[in-house]
Amino acid sequence: MAQSVEETTAFAPRFGADGLMPAVAVDAGTGRVLMLAYMNAQALALTQETGFAHYWSRSRGRMWKKGESSGAVQKVIEIRVDCDQDTLVLLVDQAPGGACHTGRDTCFYRRLGPDGTLGFDE
Amino acid sequence: MAQSVEETTAFAPRFGADGLMPAVAVDAGTGRVLMLAYMNAQALALTQETGFAHYWSRSRGRMWKKGESSGAVQKVIEIRVDCDQDTLVLLVDQAPGGACHTGRDTCFYRRLGPDGTLGFDE
Repeated sequence: MAQSVEETTAFAPRFGADGLMPAVAVDAGTGRVLMLAYMNAQALALTQETGFAHYWSRSRGRMWKKGESSGAVQKVIEIRVDCDQDTLVLLVDQAPGGACHTGRDTCFYRRLGPDGTLGFDE
Repeated sequence: MAQSVEETTAFAPRFGADGLMPAVAVDAGTGRVLMLAYMNAQALALTQETGFAHYWSRSRGRMWKKGESSGAVQKVIEIRVDCDQDTLVLLVDQAPGGACHTGRDTCFYRRLGPDGTLGFDE
């Protein structure tokens, strides 16, 4: 009897109609969410093969090794998958330079305030 | 002079062509990633108005208050947005019953092993 997608030990990532799935990068040390990017099958394969996070850049329409130009690479410690296998969490060691293209540690440096505007961390 | 999307305090969420944006729910107490779901503008508005996480269910094609049937609601403590304002992080107090429809605390209860198969936590 086939096991359900939730209970199987078979890794069968489900990419969307656009061939992409979201991957949430989390700092392996602090547990903090760093960024969200998208992977296609090739990005996932390159990530597994090299041990460094690769994503598909939707804006640039090309494969992208995170940190390829900035040096702020992400060494992948662990890959986790969710119940229905359509989202990944990557536990990463983030190299200096930050996960965010603005140079910040995380892309989530703003919180929504009660007045509907954004506040910056520190 | 208009500020860039990365540096503005104006909240201007950028939904995708399908009207959706990913929202990562994080446990406000432990910092653990619980799940990823999608919001349209109405789900975000309902979340802000009620203080409880609402999502758009892609599989069911309808609005969904998380925990509406199970009781495992998510009280939203903080909403964060990323640099280009196309992804949200919700810090939530997760009610008993777990974030995952399988009854587990988190949807990310499996990790990818070196042999390419999934291992379960515990």
